[in-house]
Amino acid sequence: MSLFSKDIKNLNDLFVHQLQDIFYAEKEIVKNLPTMIDKATSPALKLGFSNHLRETERHVERLKQIFEMHDAKVKAVDCPAIDGILEEANDVAGEADGAEVRDAALAAAAQAVEHYEIARYGTLIAWAKMLGRDDCAALLQQTLEEEKAADRKLSELSMSQLNQRAA
Amino acid sequence: MSLFSKDIKNLNDLFVHQLQDIFYAEKEIVKNLPTMIDKATSPALKLGFSNHLRETERHVERLKQIFEMHDAKVKAVDCPAIDGILEEANDVAGEADGAEVRDAALAAAAQAVEHYEIARYGTLIAWAKMLGRDDCAALLQQTLEEEKAADRKLSELSMSQLNQRAA
Repeated sequence: MSLFSKDIKNLNDLFVHQLQDIFYAEKEIVKNLPTMIDKATSPALKLGFSNHLRETERHVERLKQIFEMHDAKVKAVDCPAIDGILEEANDVAGEADGAEVRDAALAAAAQAVEHYEIARYGTLIAWAKMLGRDDCAALLQQTLEEEKAADRKLSELSMSQLNQRAA
Repeated sequence: MSLFSKDIKNLNDLFVHQLQDIFYAEKEIVKNLPTMIDKATSPALKLGFSNHLRETERHVERLKQIFEMHDAKVKAVDCPAIDGILEEANDVAGEADGAEVRDAALAAAAQAVEHYEIARYGTLIAWAKMLGRDDCAALLQQTLEEEKAADRKLSELSMSQLNQRAA
């Protein structure tokens, strides 16, 4: 993404740019989840991450479908936000001494990832509707609901098990 | 933050580390909001960012209070996540050609910031309670409510004005 080209001239350009950003983010999450599954020791957390990996792969496919529906090229742009969030996830997991505290840290890091996606999909849905693309908005809404559910499950698991074990 | 020191041995260490992370993030947001206020053209968006700057300054002070209540050193650690989110905010505002589309992009970027904070404060509250620090949790909850309110206001402003003007 060049800082000096003024490529975004209207809401449609912004929508496509944001699709490219979240497309990059979802693909990076697919790349990073296997490491998080490896590092997790709680069976429930491992299973949660594994399920979310399959879900995230479906989100990547759903984004491709939206690009095509909207006659836009399937393309990713760098997303420094998700790079930073994932870097921090790796850092804190690396600094945690002991399986229990690492699990609590990993769950928290995954929730930061979920919230990034919740923010971006929320915006994308609003923009899709404004552009008259209720068909795209409906697909984006499915992913948003899945991200919110993943975040809720992580909260429940942290409160019922992980935080207690780490304390 | 060194990747090779294993400094986080229990939930209390993780709590303090996360406080240091969000302390850095809040201070970076204070540094970046004046630029966002400058770049915004919608009077309502400018006012919203200005109000949130004052609120964020209070969040910084509240975090100092929590460090002190918890007998922890007032300290910030690098937070690559907020660095990435703010970098992306600057990038997309720089690429937007025209005030209306830039306003829509700025509001969306601010919502990504809010969601990072919502994730982190949510985790901090759960960890504070688990550590028996209901006093810290209560202060963190005040900030969380203000971040959620800021996010809601940005959604409302985007839907009622900004997105329509950018379309």
